[in-house]
Amino acid sequence: MGGTVPTRYKQHSRAWREILFTSHLTSTQLSLQVSMVKRVAVILAGCGVYDGTEVHEASAVMVHLSRAGAKVQMFAPDAEMMHVVNHCEGKPVTDTRNVLQESARIARGDVTDLVKLDVGAFDALIIPGGFGVAKNLSDWATKGKEYSVEPEVEKVIKAFHQAKKPMGMCCISPVLAAKAIPGCELTVGHDSECEKWPYAQVAKTMVEMGCKHLNKNVGEVHIDTKNKLVTTSAFMCNAPIHEIYDGLGVMVQEVLKLA
Amino acid sequence: MGGTVPTRYKQHSRAWREILFTSHLTSTQLSLQVSMVKRVAVILAGCGVYDGTEVHEASAVMVHLSRAGAKVQMFAPDAEMMHVVNHCEGKPVTDTRNVLQESARIARGDVTDLVKLDVGAFDALIIPGGFGVAKNLSDWATKGKEYSVEPEVEKVIKAFHQAKKPMGMCCISPVLAAKAIPGCELTVGHDSECEKWPYAQVAKTMVEMGCKHLNKNVGEVHIDTKNKLVTTSAFMCNAPIHEIYDGLGVMVQEVLKLA
Repeated sequence: MGGTVPTRYKQHSRAWREILFTSHLTSTQLSLQVSMVKRVAVILAGCGVYDGTEVHEASAVMVHLSRAGAKVQMFAPDAEMMHVVNHCEGKPVTDTRNVLQESARIARGDVTDLVKLDVGAFDALIIPGGFGVAKNLSDWATKGKEYSVEPEVEKVIKAFHQAKKPMGMCCISPVLAAKAIPGCELTVGHDSECEKWPYAQVAKTMVEMGCKHLNKNVGEVHIDTKNKLVTTSAFMCNAPIHEIYDGLGVMVQEVLKLA
Repeated sequence: MGGTVPTRYKQHSRAWREILFTSHLTSTQLSLQVSMVKRVAVILAGCGVYDGTEVHEASAVMVHLSRAGAKVQMFAPDAEMMHVVNHCEGKPVTDTRNVLQESARIARGDVTDLVKLDVGAFDALIIPGGFGVAKNLSDWATKGKEYSVEPEVEKVIKAFHQAKKPMGMCCISPVLAAKAIPGCELTVGHDSECEKWPYAQVAKTMVEMGCKHLNKNVGEVHIDTKNKLVTTSAFMCNAPIHEIYDGLGVMVQEVLKLA
């Protein structure tokens, strides 16, 4: 086992997955099946809720996409993280880490530099949440309403939008859409703060920015049909993890329906 | 949002979860319900397949336990990781990281030092897999068959075993049981190497150590009823992630039945 990782000990290869889904089909059915496989790009922002991608949101997205037979490729910026948070204490430390390398912990090594994302090669885009979205994919965490989205991320979102390809965003990720697709409709949960919805202020800011915010429960999504944008609250809601998992399942299904 | 993490932005508090499960009950039903809630300790070994806990295995365990209404507490050793692996390249780097702090990325900050695990306070134990089990909870990764289990980890496993409380282990974690519970029955998948089962050699070593190894598919578990040990292959199998998720669901259900 040692220190290095055998190539074979990576997430099941795409070839293998395709065999699993297609080996019982005739060649005509096979061609049809292959053309029906949805190709989904997933953008990660590190590994860990407080400075990266929320691992359970990413994992749920991967499980739901896998069950639906989608072909998934993960991407992340090859850039230094805004900062590294000691997740026991919730405080920044002096380490530096790389977004792409930390994202590889979620992707089991199989993650590609975001600059290589060719929108033409995909049918849909999904961006899980976590503070990394507000720290490494944008500067929402420090700038609030005056934030900007990292240029490469904004470029990708605008390209999917222009190509009329659907996008799924959850938790804090919809703030990326709010900037890249002015006036879009979205949900980040509820707009009235309470124990269940500690981040309700984000919803109010989305409205101030000219978006239409819809209150949705954790198991629900909002679908902006005009912009093909599917959003759900995920961990913006203080809910049991299986409810978050289920809400992300709805998001994935609705994105794939639009693809 | 900033650098520090508001306490409220943690995994739903246990109090909250209990309200969710019990608010519609009478006080008699409530007492019964509380006594029926299974308390499960989960041991983590870092965050990331190649040097820590496999994040998708841990996440799946958490989702299935949550859905079953179990009360979960996560633990990890407060110790330096054996090494840190760049997950893009699969090679060790010179950084040092702490097992407890990195585990907190999976636990959303809510993880306790393993030395504080009081076996009397729990009904069951679950240990997800990942190379961290072979590197930080034991030295299997470097010593192979001549390995030993970290004393604190071995103490906990032996204590659960002596108390006749069930344990669930997946992927490479069953090697911990093989050492702590000599002669136990377990599965780490299949014992014949192929693309689907790249780690079949582990099964052979288990047999050489005097354990009974049972070949099981990714969606199956083996239940050693005498030792109350439930094992499943998880990512020892080169399978789509939703099949691994489902196999872990079976493991969690069988552990809870025995609790």
